[in-house]
Amino acid sequence: MSLHFDLLQILPADQLSVSAPVLAEHSTDKWFASAKPDIVAFPTSTDQVSAIMQYATKHRMPVTARGSGVGYVGGCVPSQGGIVLSLARMNRIKEISLADGVAVVEPGVITGDLQMAVAAEGWFYPPDPASLKECSLGGNIATNAGGPRCVKYGVTRHYVLGLEVVLADGRVLRTGGRCHKNVTGFDLIGLFVGSEGMLGIVTEMTLRLIPHPPSRQMLSAGFATFSEAAVAVQTIFSSGFLPSAIEIADRFTLQAARAYKGAELIPEGQAHLLVELDGHEEAVTADLRKLGALVQSLHPTSLTTAVTPDECAAIWTLRREFSYSLRATGLIKLNEDIVVPRGRLVDLVNFCEALQASSNFPIACFGHAGDGNIHVNIMVPDMDDPTQRARAEAALDKLFTQILAWDGVISGEHGIGLAKKRWFAAATTAVSRSIHQDLRDTFDPLHLLNPGKFLDP
Amino acid sequence: MSLHFDLLQILPADQLSVSAPVLAEHSTDKWFASAKPDIVAFPTSTDQVSAIMQYATKHRMPVTARGSGVGYVGGCVPSQGGIVLSLARMNRIKEISLADGVAVVEPGVITGDLQMAVAAEGWFYPPDPASLKECSLGGNIATNAGGPRCVKYGVTRHYVLGLEVVLADGRVLRTGGRCHKNVTGFDLIGLFVGSEGMLGIVTEMTLRLIPHPPSRQMLSAGFATFSEAAVAVQTIFSSGFLPSAIEIADRFTLQAARAYKGAELIPEGQAHLLVELDGHEEAVTADLRKLGALVQSLHPTSLTTAVTPDECAAIWTLRREFSYSLRATGLIKLNEDIVVPRGRLVDLVNFCEALQASSNFPIACFGHAGDGNIHVNIMVPDMDDPTQRARAEAALDKLFTQILAWDGVISGEHGIGLAKKRWFAAATTAVSRSIHQDLRDTFDPLHLLNPGKFLDP
Repeated sequence: MSLHFDLLQILPADQLSVSAPVLAEHSTDKWFASAKPDIVAFPTSTDQVSAIMQYATKHRMPVTARGSGVGYVGGCVPSQGGIVLSLARMNRIKEISLADGVAVVEPGVITGDLQMAVAAEGWFYPPDPASLKECSLGGNIATNAGGPRCVKYGVTRHYVLGLEVVLADGRVLRTGGRCHKNVTGFDLIGLFVGSEGMLGIVTEMTLRLIPHPPSRQMLSAGFATFSEAAVAVQTIFSSGFLPSAIEIADRFTLQAARAYKGAELIPEGQAHLLVELDGHEEAVTADLRKLGALVQSLHPTSLTTAVTPDECAAIWTLRREFSYSLRATGLIKLNEDIVVPRGRLVDLVNFCEALQASSNFPIACFGHAGDGNIHVNIMVPDMDDPTQRARAEAALDKLFTQILAWDGVISGEHGIGLAKKRWFAAATTAVSRSIHQDLRDTFDPLHLLNPGKFLDP
Repeated sequence: MSLHFDLLQILPADQLSVSAPVLAEHSTDKWFASAKPDIVAFPTSTDQVSAIMQYATKHRMPVTARGSGVGYVGGCVPSQGGIVLSLARMNRIKEISLADGVAVVEPGVITGDLQMAVAAEGWFYPPDPASLKECSLGGNIATNAGGPRCVKYGVTRHYVLGLEVVLADGRVLRTGGRCHKNVTGFDLIGLFVGSEGMLGIVTEMTLRLIPHPPSRQMLSAGFATFSEAAVAVQTIFSSGFLPSAIEIADRFTLQAARAYKGAELIPEGQAHLLVELDGHEEAVTADLRKLGALVQSLHPTSLTTAVTPDECAAIWTLRREFSYSLRATGLIKLNEDIVVPRGRLVDLVNFCEALQASSNFPIACFGHAGDGNIHVNIMVPDMDDPTQRARAEAALDKLFTQILAWDGVISGEHGIGLAKKRWFAAATTAVSRSIHQDLRDTFDPLHLLNPGKFLDP
């Protein structure tokens, strides 16, 4: 019996595909690794997902769940073939309850679509990965996604109140619910959030909503040196501000942006700081005035504030140009979402400047300064060239070795997947890895779920 | 060989006790169940904890970890005797790093002591269980403790960045660290937080700190009916406020407070609402003005605002009087920390009024309205009287059955322990309970850690 024939007993024909373009599309994500699945399944219900997993268990068939496929670490690449289980068609917003402050959604819902749907009612779902217009909430759960506003509002985990999960053997687990606090037994929700599709397949989630802040205002400042911008970050926190975003960018990033957009559009200086405040308008206005005076006292090379939604949008557009500018260099952007203890921000940028010199790859640092979560972009002309790839890997070795020596971590938002598999051992203790294996054996004794990733040799 | 003799090979004599008063003190918490341990150990280092667990594994000896012993569910009662492992002497604040925004502490540190130590530096550790002057941070981790300010700032889990944990077999796990974001592998931290001492013994934690809000201001309002107060809660959220606390109290609570403190000190009306806002002074002042106008439009029977720290302290004192007033009735307070979906607040209080009539026990409801986490206090004259106890259990049966029918949960802050063991099965699915057993078997195959609780028959 063929796999395709077998699965036709479970799913209608239009929910299965073995066509070459569909297989190719489901072979990769935004990283460069690729592996072709044998078939792609598009279930539309929990029962179908359960039936697929029962089949997979019976026939020892690998299953790799997939959201929107916009991850940066090859996390949804079906390394061992088998079935790609796309959640793209399970994309209903089942309920938005303002009285309870929750949304009940399927995993294929696009993050930005949920944000817009709840914002239309005056409510807010805070996690805001940069890919929010493309990424799915199921993918956000697989990686415990973050974003700029997490510095104030916390990461995806903090917004998941309830889950329905299909386990490797097809059993359906329901845990948590629509209450905002719950300490009934162990935190099973936390175990699935960030588990990169290796412990179960989430088929429904209940998410916490909070009131939408009525007003947002921003500040954009240039500084002569990165050190001064990093001092500004620390000064803002130590002055009692908890901004809704606090983002930083280094010299190389600004240079690329000037080359791409024209120097006149990019603030002067060798470092850029963006701060967003939110709340009721009158309160935010008062806070922005205070924040502006504080930052002015730190001698920025430029300082502007944004009060209206349009002005704020212009600053966020500038922020996004940093990423586009790097892509426009024509180089491959190895976007490493490392995190350092916040006190190491200056050390990190100094280290990256030295690494740029020694590796001869341009390196651009920008990102979520408040969390110490900086996207270090090593810009490589051609990853298919073995010499360049070896040099890039050597540069990454140096970077991650230093990050870990500072008690930093190798991934703050994207996960380990395939891209960071080689460094997982260095980033964890032997006891931790042993527990990881035990947990995998407990939930997926046949190692069917997303095999080939960081727990496999 | 005796247990005492054996343990003297591991710990010095002054770190062990078999004296009757010490055993009695370590037999119980704030709930009424009690079981005497064979010995109490007071380790002062991770190595000692590890050595005790190696001994326990070798000799199949139950070990019940204990923080301050101020829980409400008998969670640290050594149901099967053996060793009580007190963390009280591991109470050092090892480091407070403002640059990194972290504190590194041992589990015996009292929550309020850490809060004061970091507040002295202008920083803030938000989780604020009512017992914060007595409870330990290790106990907070065991139960994933909450408190009034969690509505804005989140629960204990959201502040744990790193853990050192001694496992049942004595191995020492280090996971996480001092970074504010981390998605390296599965979320092992989340698994230990809220695990009620059944998966490992935490010996060190790294906690996230945030800037201390420079100003807090409050509003206190009475309402003619509980429904009106509940409407006020929903209106405050839907108007874009995310208060740092929003607490509610019902008629019985106010009656008890009037009887205890004098009617003139307690606001008029049959329901009370307290709201706290925090941030920079000018912003909070603007917000409080707006909030005051909003609440005034809802026709409260009384409305006062508090601007200075002393005025705010007076309102928080009033809030605490609710609890003292109930104790002053001379009745035993079965404090059930149930949670309902926020839209069920009025249904809950109506149900409790009916339950009060049918059970003939006074019932007082107050607590964290923003989370739907209401402390339902069933006031029982004598739990040692079998008839009364049976009636109390029947009332609890009715309460929990209704809570679960509303998709509520039986514990939002205190945990399951012994007190709610009888309802654990009704509050979870069969698949969830099966996974709980699997996880226990993975981490503690001999069932040595805190045995006799909600996973045992």
